[in-house]
Amino acid sequence: MNLTETDHAEIDAARAQVASTRRATVPALEAMLFTAVPVLDHGFLRVIDYMGDDAAVVQAARVSYGRGTRKVSEDEGLIRYLMRHRHSTPFEMCEIKFHVKLPIFVARQWIRHRTASVNEYSARYSVMDREFYIPAPEHLATQSASNRQGRGEILDGREAADVLTLLRDDADRNYAHYEFMLNETGTDPARHGLARELARMNLTLNTYTQWYWKTNLHNLFHFLSLRADPHAQYEIRVYAEAMLSMTRAWVPASCRAFEEYRLGAAIFSATMLAVLRRMLDGEAVEPASSGLSKREWTEMMAMLGR
Amino acid sequence: MNLTETDHAEIDAARAQVASTRRATVPALEAMLFTAVPVLDHGFLRVIDYMGDDAAVVQAARVSYGRGTRKVSEDEGLIRYLMRHRHSTPFEMCEIKFHVKLPIFVARQWIRHRTASVNEYSARYSVMDREFYIPAPEHLATQSASNRQGRGEILDGREAADVLTLLRDDADRNYAHYEFMLNETGTDPARHGLARELARMNLTLNTYTQWYWKTNLHNLFHFLSLRADPHAQYEIRVYAEAMLSMTRAWVPASCRAFEEYRLGAAIFSATMLAVLRRMLDGEAVEPASSGLSKREWTEMMAMLGR
Amino acid sequence: MNLTETDHAEIDAARAQVASTRRATVPALEAMLFTAVPVLDHGFLRVIDYMGDDAAVVQAARVSYGRGTRKVSEDEGLIRYLMRHRHSTPFEMCEIKFHVKLPIFVARQWIRHRTASVNEYSARYSVMDREFYIPAPEHLATQSASNRQGRGEILDGREAADVLTLLRDDADRNYAHYEFMLNETGTDPARHGLARELARMNLTLNTYTQWYWKTNLHNLFHFLSLRADPHAQYEIRVYAEAMLSMTRAWVPASCRAFEEYRLGAAIFSATMLAVLRRMLDGEAVEPASSGLSKREWTEMMAMLGR
Amino acid sequence: MNLTETDHAEIDAARAQVASTRRATVPALEAMLFTAVPVLDHGFLRVIDYMGDDAAVVQAARVSYGRGTRKVSEDEGLIRYLMRHRHSTPFEMCEIKFHVKLPIFVARQWIRHRTASVNEYSARYSVMDREFYIPAPEHLATQSASNRQGRGEILDGREAADVLTLLRDDADRNYAHYEFMLNETGTDPARHGLARELARMNLTLNTYTQWYWKTNLHNLFHFLSLRADPHAQYEIRVYAEAMLSMTRAWVPASCRAFEEYRLGAAIFSATMLAVLRRMLDGEAVEPASSGLSKREWTEMMAMLGR
Repeated sequence: MNLTETDHAEIDAARAQVASTRRATVPALEAMLFTAVPVLDHGFLRVIDYMGDDAAVVQAARVSYGRGTRKVSEDEGLIRYLMRHRHSTPFEMCEIKFHVKLPIFVARQWIRHRTASVNEYSARYSVMDREFYIPAPEHLATQSASNRQGRGEILDGREAADVLTLLRDDADRNYAHYEFMLNETGTDPARHGLARELARMNLTLNTYTQWYWKTNLHNLFHFLSLRADPHAQYEIRVYAEAMLSMTRAWVPASCRAFEEYRLGAAIFSATMLAVLRRMLDGEAVEPASSGLSKREWTEMMAMLGR
Repeated sequence: MNLTETDHAEIDAARAQVASTRRATVPALEAMLFTAVPVLDHGFLRVIDYMGDDAAVVQAARVSYGRGTRKVSEDEGLIRYLMRHRHSTPFEMCEIKFHVKLPIFVARQWIRHRTASVNEYSARYSVMDREFYIPAPEHLATQSASNRQGRGEILDGREAADVLTLLRDDADRNYAHYEFMLNETGTDPARHGLARELARMNLTLNTYTQWYWKTNLHNLFHFLSLRADPHAQYEIRVYAEAMLSMTRAWVPASCRAFEEYRLGAAIFSATMLAVLRRMLDGEAVEPASSGLSKREWTEMMAMLGR
Repeated sequence: MNLTETDHAEIDAARAQVASTRRATVPALEAMLFTAVPVLDHGFLRVIDYMGDDAAVVQAARVSYGRGTRKVSEDEGLIRYLMRHRHSTPFEMCEIKFHVKLPIFVARQWIRHRTASVNEYSARYSVMDREFYIPAPEHLATQSASNRQGRGEILDGREAADVLTLLRDDADRNYAHYEFMLNETGTDPARHGLARELARMNLTLNTYTQWYWKTNLHNLFHFLSLRADPHAQYEIRVYAEAMLSMTRAWVPASCRAFEEYRLGAAIFSATMLAVLRRMLDGEAVEPASSGLSKREWTEMMAMLGR
Repeated sequence: MNLTETDHAEIDAARAQVASTRRATVPALEAMLFTAVPVLDHGFLRVIDYMGDDAAVVQAARVSYGRGTRKVSEDEGLIRYLMRHRHSTPFEMCEIKFHVKLPIFVARQWIRHRTASVNEYSARYSVMDREFYIPAPEHLATQSASNRQGRGEILDGREAADVLTLLRDDADRNYAHYEFMLNETGTDPARHGLARELARMNLTLNTYTQWYWKTNLHNLFHFLSLRADPHAQYEIRVYAEAMLSMTRAWVPASCRAFEEYRLGAAIFSATMLAVLRRMLDGEAVEPASSGLSKREWTEMMAMLGR
């Protein structure tokens, strides 16, 4: 994370400003506001603003006037009920806005979640910073043999070193040529510079960009269910995990329900349910007679921890 | 507006709770929070929560760290530029949540705006209140002769009185039968009651419902541009006008830009632009040679105040 | 279903028109095109247009040029994989458009699904037909004692008859007054008529409306998973079931995968999974030591058919 | 455009398959189906599927049974009315699906349009092709002096040549290192290969990707109004222009209305309207007394062709 002195001063100044409000307020999240949490080598994630809390979910479900007219235990029970039965609209009543710095190839995955508001740093308008994601050696892995879109074993030291050198050199060189083409620093007044919207095409996909990203709690949970999942690419999963931890501070009861009924849950298909019933009746079901494909059988056994 | 003593007490209690926050806060909107503004005979509109302010729009446009590093005049100029050039995403960074009580036939128009979050009072789950919209006599009008979906002249006193009697009697009778079918008050223990999800079908479309409605500023402006327009039906326009007035308190610079470049603006088609140029060159353009249909000519003259 | 002679003639004429196309075409759905399937007493559902087929889902997943380069068995395996692992975007590549006639209170539930395109018959612009939903006696039920938004036992004959009389009389009377207020038939030239946008408020919620409703296959499956579910209100479930049957004709492999992995599947929470593992290890788990609430325990046993 | 022999054979085979359908069919668009139209140096655009035609827009507006019951002139008048008065939902009844090959930096702009369905070639799953966008010399321009996100004058020959050499060499080298890191060709069996999801980060932003992109006509018009505009970056505008030309073949009346009332139209703000009225009254309005900023004055004069 490369925040400048100025950045730190501005964050401190923003954190020092306190106002009084009648709105629902969450002290645990207030404590985190504006502070940048490091992610990857130069990235970060920080909460800029939020709206609503667990009680806003409950209020929407009750469409009633009061807040806290019932006991907390009943509120949590209602939240769990909503999550379990896919009553998703009350969770849309909470909103959160993040400021994220992330590599472009991660941004390309992230932006596929369409139900969010985004304002990204514009490389048509501004010059990109000289910052690239270079993985830590322990995250350099081979293509997975079993999973066509995953990683396998870690590269050994020599191979990893070669990869890191290539990544660093190529990103550096391409950035240097980007700057040369722009020719904005005035070192070469005899030459014209190339327009920013064109020069940017020479940058590599590990160049860092940044954006404001705002979404509601329902859509955030959907994002987290896909991106905080072990099958997600490591480089986006670390952002999702940082968000999950902030979400726990913000809406603890909703987040517990999410982890119970979504993130830690498993879906059994109609055929899997039939197999499950036979197993519970004491039958030693064989894959061949299960009606499941070999792949599904493996997935089901994994869900059952067998 | 039929708020009970309990409702008023709860609103007062909610307004009395004040917390400190590091978030962007708008005192002029805080002053309005939770208070119900009457709309129509029994409806209301009140702001329950909000997120962001004019500076949040500017911040998203600049994707920069600081708030208020520039002069206010520059911020307003940027907001005007964004609105003029349809750069809509920065306006998505602000969010607002309303609690609305409104007749069902108005709710049916309103819900066609899909980019919002809604939790409505459920007539499957709960018993509807005995409240109906009965127009004021001065809003009872004939079908417009010129506009197939508008109103014409006001009904005279006798006719208006007849209409009001019918509306009142039918709503009352249908509600009484709704209660009879439900049979929940226990007056007739020998009889079963009809399920709520069925009995509700006997209610009239002027019965009041209520919901929480949450949207971002961009989508709110879109709603207002259609529903605060003179062509909108009076019964939804009054809600839009109340929202517009709250929006002015919330994001004054964005709202000024909206009124200048959207609500008070006019679109000239390619052919209208050609006519305009001829007129500015001093030509007395005739409808027949304008290339416009008669209807478009009328619309263009109205836009020019001629 | 009250289609006029003219309606039938127009449907027959539309069905008689055949063109040649290079697009993906599904003969089983072509056979159903335009024909109205009756739903409830006066409603209907008919497919007006569609785009794509099972192969379009596969093609999007493969982002390749050809169609049918692989065996059908592999295509179906891929579709099942996509459905199982919530890879939803390929299912968005298929689109379908329905024409639906339905009671207003059903339309109010239906419209809450926001990810669809809708054009509804306008009661501001046109006069509504004199058609109301009157339930069959066997669908008149009491409020459920166990489920706050469901139905319990069927009303007995006398009570049912009373309810039906009230529903019929109130709908008829209110419609007659609607027509009287409109005064469009010219029977009373001395009187003005009330604008349509106002008079409509006197109609009851069981009045039939109609719309074109267009959505993609992913969103259709989401709709069906909620509305073809036994917990959905009967009056919307019958529409969902009619749609499900058309969807089977249109995209048989995708629909089989949907029924296997969504409609017929069950979600086990993290705690339920732990209980399941203990049961499979031979333990006779008691509700009290399960970590589940009483309600969740009941739900889990229902999922397991116990 | 680098289609292989196999690609051409598959396109020809797809075009040779003809089926009969009862659906609305547009011969002029059928003639274009599947054929790849070259865009930029290696990109293309082709229509894969569509649903609806001009009559589907009219039908949705009328919510009636028949097609073509009115004269064509009335249909076009209705379409023009809908477009002029922003009645956008009938245009949602038409849907189109494109297959697009485009540079990644263009894809990054394009994907910001959220109301579309997308399936993109996956660099986690597959190896990217060795194809990069290298601009033609006449499209290499300087940063605009007046517009912070546009282009100015064309680079002279020597400078352009230097830029092209850098772009080509960097893209080639980075791709070669991408292949080396992947080590999938088996040339170096002693070495492991890096996972695809990691190696891809070394590629440059002018690398070509491809996707299926499907949207409805309303959202397509919105895309075209922003991307077929002279202010759009050249590299995305050429795709928009190719789409616009296909849209003219598909829905000629809707597209004419779009070009008349949106693409070729101009919005005058409230203050501009006041200025316009003074000008039409014969006053020689000066910028200083116009109430417009200098920038707005310039924009208004441009709209009026002065």
